[in-house]
Amino acid sequence: MVSIGLMFTVGAVSLNLPDGPGSLTRRLCAALREGIQTGRLAPDSALPPSRSLASEIGCSRWVVTEAYGQLVTEGYLIATTGSATRVRGTATGFPTGAAHQLAPPPRPRFDLTPGVPDLAAFPRSRWAEAYRQAVLDLPNDLLAGRALISTSAARTTLTDFLRRTRQVQEDPSQLSLTTGSTAGMGWLTALLAKLGHTRIAVEDPSWAGLRAVARRGGITPVPIPVDQHGLVVGRLSEHRDVRLALVTPAHQFPVGVALSAARRLELIDWARRVDGLIIEDDYDADFRYDARPVASLQGLAPDRVVLLGSLSKALSPAIELGWLIMPQPLIMALLGLDLDRIVSPSPITVEALAVMIERGWYERHLRAQRLRYRRRRELFVDALAQHLPQTQVTGLAAGLHLPLRLPPGTDAAELVRRGARRELGLVSAERYRIRPLDDPGLVLGFGNLRDSRIDEAVQRLAVATAESVRSPRRRPR
Amino acid sequence: MVSIGLMFTVGAVSLNLPDGPGSLTRRLCAALREGIQTGRLAPDSALPPSRSLASEIGCSRWVVTEAYGQLVTEGYLIATTGSATRVRGTATGFPTGAAHQLAPPPRPRFDLTPGVPDLAAFPRSRWAEAYRQAVLDLPNDLLAGRALISTSAARTTLTDFLRRTRQVQEDPSQLSLTTGSTAGMGWLTALLAKLGHTRIAVEDPSWAGLRAVARRGGITPVPIPVDQHGLVVGRLSEHRDVRLALVTPAHQFPVGVALSAARRLELIDWARRVDGLIIEDDYDADFRYDARPVASLQGLAPDRVVLLGSLSKALSPAIELGWLIMPQPLIMALLGLDLDRIVSPSPITVEALAVMIERGWYERHLRAQRLRYRRRRELFVDALAQHLPQTQVTGLAAGLHLPLRLPPGTDAAELVRRGARRELGLVSAERYRIRPLDDPGLVLGFGNLRDSRIDEAVQRLAVATAESVRSPRRRPR
Repeated sequence: MVSIGLMFTVGAVSLNLPDGPGSLTRRLCAALREGIQTGRLAPDSALPPSRSLASEIGCSRWVVTEAYGQLVTEGYLIATTGSATRVRGTATGFPTGAAHQLAPPPRPRFDLTPGVPDLAAFPRSRWAEAYRQAVLDLPNDLLAGRALISTSAARTTLTDFLRRTRQVQEDPSQLSLTTGSTAGMGWLTALLAKLGHTRIAVEDPSWAGLRAVARRGGITPVPIPVDQHGLVVGRLSEHRDVRLALVTPAHQFPVGVALSAARRLELIDWARRVDGLIIEDDYDADFRYDARPVASLQGLAPDRVVLLGSLSKALSPAIELGWLIMPQPLIMALLGLDLDRIVSPSPITVEALAVMIERGWYERHLRAQRLRYRRRRELFVDALAQHLPQTQVTGLAAGLHLPLRLPPGTDAAELVRRGARRELGLVSAERYRIRPLDDPGLVLGFGNLRDSRIDEAVQRLAVATAESVRSPRRRPR
Repeated sequence: MVSIGLMFTVGAVSLNLPDGPGSLTRRLCAALREGIQTGRLAPDSALPPSRSLASEIGCSRWVVTEAYGQLVTEGYLIATTGSATRVRGTATGFPTGAAHQLAPPPRPRFDLTPGVPDLAAFPRSRWAEAYRQAVLDLPNDLLAGRALISTSAARTTLTDFLRRTRQVQEDPSQLSLTTGSTAGMGWLTALLAKLGHTRIAVEDPSWAGLRAVARRGGITPVPIPVDQHGLVVGRLSEHRDVRLALVTPAHQFPVGVALSAARRLELIDWARRVDGLIIEDDYDADFRYDARPVASLQGLAPDRVVLLGSLSKALSPAIELGWLIMPQPLIMALLGLDLDRIVSPSPITVEALAVMIERGWYERHLRAQRLRYRRRRELFVDALAQHLPQTQVTGLAAGLHLPLRLPPGTDAAELVRRGARRELGLVSAERYRIRPLDDPGLVLGFGNLRDSRIDEAVQRLAVATAESVRSPRRRPR
């Protein structure tokens, strides 16, 4: 309450009756309430008779009795017949003192952590215009709820787009809208747990986020190794009770390889043999620089593959929109779930994406980003070759990250710490491994790193790397 | 694939090479993939040598070998050295036939179900403009993630607004942003379960949604009756292991009363005595027509009350924005939770609301809606008095619903069914009760009912009510 208004007194305490909007009664309520909440009006202290306070303020007595009445209703004051209105006796519990501040951690100046797209390239005007169009056009009824379903026009637009760009096979009824891949995995897990699944094969290494969702939903991750052809599918048969597999076929995260054709067929055969399901995390498949993107696994076996996709890499996680494509029988099972446990995206957002697609803005953005990322990756790889020739970039020319093999003897954890002191955001490859491996590496994200900062970032990385080589004598901890 | 392009043949099958965007290789891939997916190109059938297909299409041979290569990579084709490229042998599982359509259920023409605000009054242009401003102004970093936190400016705006309109006591660090009350209750439940709570007192009757969230999170609801002063707080002490209570103090749902001052104090005393917490579901407190809204319970005991609020009633559930105000110690415990299990709202949406508040648009909208709903409720009550004089409206002049007591002997379930045949959406009061009570009633929502339809809706309701009186002889079921 910072506005300056009329001062008035209650006992020895002077209070401020603020100017501003609202009736006099309302402002008087606010002033008294604040006095009580801050402790300036002590518990049990008597309020002046309404007549005298009214004359001090210069208002009708009715205003004061109204205000007292309201605060009695709210529990701040106590009125006793024949006695003064008093501040409630047990007015404890009002917090004082400086508040704890919850600030989001600032992003490091040279942010090489993977997973963040080029935020500066977010098509702000176009998205705002698409959203405006969506808000203006959305039927009233859709404003009543969430968008597991949305309009059939928007669903058809998105389905057609995914068929064209990811070669999925689906009809719009197989598409469910989510707020993102993690949320989609959440209710997929709920569904699969209900259908009796207790274990899921996951790639080792892989992103911990989706694995953790499965685990929280009661489905235990079973690590399966990854080699240069992707998931080592042959190892699945070692686990007889596993009938689910979570994979990143287009661009394995973080290893950066594509699942080979032979492995694709082997994986689908496995799923058919065990009557299982494959969950395809299609997280960054829009971005391939050396060739066209490999088509989705879903298109090859729509009866056995669930595809998880989102706008997180293509536009921004802040849009909060993703999708699930499921085989028909699973859709039917989904409808048997409590739908209110499913957090669906805003129908306005879904319509806005449909507008972006229909006007060609979304594909234009993807094309522009593909060129931008390709160039950024080249600059990054060149800088690494120049300043860190003893390291090795592995993986395909794709996506927004690259795995970097460090010289033997480098302490990757130490490098992450030393990097932080040089304003570098780094992530060790170890973070994604389920079973530890003594092979030091980093997973470097270049999506949100400005081109002009690449060279300096890599120079700083080179210094930090040099400092993080284990000396032959073990240094004391 | 509806575009018409060049036809070409593979064996006896003729395929369509579509016109349109994309390179010739890409379009050839699409045509072959579609042929395989639809089963027109049978498993194991041989593809023509690249030279002959190229000459049929009239393109370079390289285009065909590229396309074949891509489809081998994707697993659609198999290449064997010295032999023809073939369609993969086990290409089963491609669904055919008409797809099941998942259409959202249409809203009834006379929608008297509670919980839906006036969707036609959604301030489309203003919201679009606020969103546009938010998209253009949002710092890049905020596009990287979700908005449990958001900008401190937006948080301060919302905190100030809640202090002004709901008399909450908080500083911005106590505010957490959610996608709505149900989601907020979800992670509050996770937190409270982790802190050892196993049971929660809930109002009987009450909305089942939040209770169900608690139950799913492992906290069992314990029903406590409601009378004309709100929750019968005295009954809490019958349950020694209950230290949580979920209440609707401003406007009990569905009974429609406000929690009295004495009960407010009694409830807070109870919470202090048992070292417990009160969850205040502040779902429709913006709308009171006979008096000013009762201040929040949170403002009276910020150390013991968690306030749950959202835009669902004030704007639309489709915005997907809500908030939680928690005591400081709970905020600290929250930070110990896995934050990735929390679905936070889009930071753009949070900023858009801040713009709405700063420009005064949000309060103007609330004022306009208050007048509109007040008038609508009056028309509705008048129509009920005219066409259904034997019923009784109970509860305060507030919110978007009113409880209607039916004449004794009315079969409310039958009335709901008969109403549906007359295009009326009705909900029996029974739906909200945990312990059944033989006192027939409806809970009627008027928020989304057009003024011009009220009279006809009530006339239809009168006819359906007359048809639903139990005859003295019990009719066979």
